[in-house]
Amino acid sequence: MGPHPAVAAIRLAVRRVLHDLLTEHHRTTAALPHAPSHELPPPPLVLVACSGGADSMALASALAFESPKLGIRAGGVTVDHGLQPGSDLRAAEVVLRLRELGLDPVDSVAVTVGRAGGPEAAARDARYAALDTAAERHGAAAVLLGHTRDDQAETVLLGLARGSGIRSLSGMAAVSGADGRYRRPFLELDRQTARKACMVQSLPVWDDPHNADPAYTRSRLRHEGLPALEKALGKGVVEALARTARLSRDDADALDSWAAQAEATVRDAAGLLECAKLYALPPAVRRRILRRAAIAAGAPAGSLFARHIEEVDRLITGWRGQGAINLPGKVVARRQGGRLVIRQG
Amino acid sequence: MGPHPAVAAIRLAVRRVLHDLLTEHHRTTAALPHAPSHELPPPPLVLVACSGGADSMALASALAFESPKLGIRAGGVTVDHGLQPGSDLRAAEVVLRLRELGLDPVDSVAVTVGRAGGPEAAARDARYAALDTAAERHGAAAVLLGHTRDDQAETVLLGLARGSGIRSLSGMAAVSGADGRYRRPFLELDRQTARKACMVQSLPVWDDPHNADPAYTRSRLRHEGLPALEKALGKGVVEALARTARLSRDDADALDSWAAQAEATVRDAAGLLECAKLYALPPAVRRRILRRAAIAAGAPAGSLFARHIEEVDRLITGWRGQGAINLPGKVVARRQGGRLVIRQG
Repeated sequence: MGPHPAVAAIRLAVRRVLHDLLTEHHRTTAALPHAPSHELPPPPLVLVACSGGADSMALASALAFESPKLGIRAGGVTVDHGLQPGSDLRAAEVVLRLRELGLDPVDSVAVTVGRAGGPEAAARDARYAALDTAAERHGAAAVLLGHTRDDQAETVLLGLARGSGIRSLSGMAAVSGADGRYRRPFLELDRQTARKACMVQSLPVWDDPHNADPAYTRSRLRHEGLPALEKALGKGVVEALARTARLSRDDADALDSWAAQAEATVRDAAGLLECAKLYALPPAVRRRILRRAAIAAGAPAGSLFARHIEEVDRLITGWRGQGAINLPGKVVARRQGGRLVIRQG
Repeated sequence: MGPHPAVAAIRLAVRRVLHDLLTEHHRTTAALPHAPSHELPPPPLVLVACSGGADSMALASALAFESPKLGIRAGGVTVDHGLQPGSDLRAAEVVLRLRELGLDPVDSVAVTVGRAGGPEAAARDARYAALDTAAERHGAAAVLLGHTRDDQAETVLLGLARGSGIRSLSGMAAVSGADGRYRRPFLELDRQTARKACMVQSLPVWDDPHNADPAYTRSRLRHEGLPALEKALGKGVVEALARTARLSRDDADALDSWAAQAEATVRDAAGLLECAKLYALPPAVRRRILRRAAIAAGAPAGSLFARHIEEVDRLITGWRGQGAINLPGKVVARRQGGRLVIRQG
């Protein structure tokens, strides 16, 4: 008798990612100069980032099960955000559980969460910095993250609320970070399956009270927004949102590459953007070129909104002698003699 | 003292669209062969489609106010869907109200709603067919529709629930239909403004019970889904969804034009799609070419989902000798000798 379907599902998802990693690893080591066989490079190490919650505990269990069969070393990291009393004990408990699963090395890293960008963004920044450090310290080939299809659906809705275009609808990537360090094996798997897999494997899981705290946007979305949307639109909403993320990511990539290529063709000999040539481009491509130019001039990408770019675009499409447009980062856009000048100060 | 801000807002929105229509009208008539001045073409006629609800009553009132100042004739059409007892009396009352506003001609058109595509789609199809007929009978230059920014937000969410990509996120166009017949002046205006404008102008409005009937997806979205989403994500959700629609429409247009151009470059002398050339394209462009090819082969666009195209795409990106892929409309896609053959039967 095979494992429970939920356990089979989490293992398959992890196995696929480990296969990809091994293929990449062999490609890299094959490219190295030949060395005597007793100096074979060590097998790759894969870490799992684990909060102790159901998603990442399921991920840790699947990694522990699959990695030995592929000759991969498996370890874990848990991050103590220090946001709740007793979070250090929690972290110590997660370390214990990961060791019990057979993972080695296992680290607990305490971080200090700042305030920049709001509580959720600050916690995320601190967490990824700690995971980066841990990965580098251990020379890990990858860090697995337990984000599920439900997390992806929430991320798409959060992007939708910004209304800043399809890039913000593209959610989380299956592969991201420096050299593709972060992998998300569960991005096509639903949260219920991860939870079920923990239950049938008798893995104790911890429900982070933050996940149910209505002070957090994501938590409100999870417990109120998405269920109401599912009630109105039907059960397929989460899957549809995840598919939207995949399609939007490919679309945004294609349009970015088009804009990068087109940008070279709309600059004059002095490197200035020619308004007539910009005008002839599709709006979607033109606005991406304007955004690139504003960022290159020093505008911070995170503060540059769709409405800023639309205003600059009107210097091209609705020219009636309007003045300079102020953009974030003290960047100014103005039209001069048929050229668009975007620069700081 | 000027008009109430809500009335000023609806009038400005309509004035802008009428200005566009006049510009187009003059361009067309100027292109006609010169005629004696006593045979000047008649001024254009603009019709408003009016259900008697707040949005379209506000639209009718603004059209009646603005059109004489621009030398435009203004009329109205109301469609009796025959779905509720007394709907004919309702329609007669709407005709009366439109005449009281000074609109002429005003038509009431009774339609028979079929069943194809579900109740909402069937009612919509019957309505647009009736509006097309009315526009042609009167030689109208345009038909104004009262869709607001809130309707647009709902349409984007309905598209999101399909999960079929950014074209379905692009909502309703400000200009659509044959020769750009349909115009939506209120697409950037919120429903509350239209309602307020009716109130301060003492225009009686009719609340269609269908709009509150939870049997309809759009109604559930309006009364439960969207409010819950606003509660979770903040008040800017409707505006963000409407902006997403505009940006997605431009992006989808640009990618469609890219795919149309690229399609010619990936066909061999016999007109077959070359897999190697398809492989080299960005996935977003490649999948659009596959979709175009499937539709050209006879697959009905409405039944062709993202998952169908993904499966055909794997004949290119994940070739391991798989068999023919069955698509809707009895269209079959198979790989043969490095070519992709998509045809019926």
